Amino acid sequence: MPLKEDLNWRYATKKYDATKSVATEDIEKIIEAARLAPSSYGLQPYRVISISNQEIKNKIVPIAGNQQIVADCSHLLVFVAWDGYDKQRVDKIFNDTTDQRGLAKGTVFGSQTEAIVESQINLSEIEARIDTAKQACISLGFAIAQAAELKIDSTPMGGVNNAELDHLLGLDSKGLKSVYLLTLGYRQREGDWLVNLKKVRTPKDEFVIEIK
Amino acid sequence: MPLKEDLNWRYATKKYDATKSVATEDIEKIIEAARLAPSSYGLQPYRVISISNQEIKNKIVPIAGNQQIVADCSHLLVFVAWDGYDKQRVDKIFNDTTDQRGLAKGTVFGSQTEAIVESQINLSEIEARIDTAKQACISLGFAIAQAAELKIDSTPMGGVNNAELDHLLGLDSKGLKSVYLLTLGYRQREGDWLVNLKKVRTPKDEFVIEIK
Repeated sequence: MPLKEDLNWRYATKKYDATKSVATEDIEKIIEAARLAPSSYGLQPYRVISISNQEIKNKIVPIAGNQQIVADCSHLLVFVAWDGYDKQRVDKIFNDTTDQRGLAKGTVFGSQTEAIVESQINLSEIEARIDTAKQACISLGFAIAQAAELKIDSTPMGGVNNAELDHLLGLDSKGLKSVYLLTLGYRQREGDWLVNLKKVRTPKDEFVIEIK
Repeated sequence: MPLKEDLNWRYATKKYDATKSVATEDIEKIIEAARLAPSSYGLQPYRVISISNQEIKNKIVPIAGNQQIVADCSHLLVFVAWDGYDKQRVDKIFNDTTDQRGLAKGTVFGSQTEAIVESQINLSEIEARIDTAKQACISLGFAIAQAAELKIDSTPMGGVNNAELDHLLGLDSKGLKSVYLLTLGYRQREGDWLVNLKKVRTPKDEFVIEIK
């Protein structure tokens, strides 16, 4: 099936069948799509936390606007981003990259490498936060598309209490901040108010502005 | 071909064949994928500017770190986001949605509708900026995946002078702000320093944190 049809098939599932689990190999495929996403300078300043533990999912419900889908879904993915750039983080990635490519350290972007490191670590706190969050969301887009191809239902959730979630998951000590949630599982048509409603999007001629 | 293979096939193209254009119908498919992306409450607070005009692409080169790919690509997509939420914007989407679904105005999210409108328009300027940018990037992720399926090369670009770009494109008067660029076209292998290098990503066991 073409990707377009998969993307039309999917919708933000509002009721999951709590008795159905997504197979481990499918979860791995979805996370692999997220891992394959492009990032600025290949730094991938984000990670995915995959939660299937029922107790933890239950604890996240009140943090996520009391949405029951967090408890009923099979897996809850939390897309998290670095809380900032620092030389150690950037150097590690760049050195791993040159090692894997058989190149000399410090040459991953040729003569521009040092300037790139500086530009990243000199971002202000808010600039870095926006920068890493945006990149995490490209990765999230890949994960949602991959889930759709596998006919696994998903619901992205942006509006959560990030500070509480970060505390619950111990993200501060890992230098990470939550960005977005993605529930994964299988729809339960009964009780899902959205499943039979028309998919509505901004009309094409309003969505795109062409400069020819 | 499974999406996974498409995502492995793609890479951040560093040299485009300036003589090759992407067919209009393929550009439309890529923008359609972006349009199908999910958004908070279905508000889609982002748009895509599709630029094939050579003069405008040339003008964007210095704004985008002097990267020649902006001039050589077939189409430059600029993902832009609303500069904020206001009641008029939110009401328009919600009313369109209820109209298309044959529901009474003000009921798109049942009794929660009014609270949702309030929560969005009460976001601070920086909260709204982050919120809309993140959503634009989910949409960007869909576009990149769709391009990969079509075997169209693409390069996302985050690090540009957004203020200058917004000015050039007259975004202020439209209530929009640039978020990310995406070049589309066909690779020119000669002159592309990245095309033959190994794709490097954070190892799986570092990328994912499992809570079982």
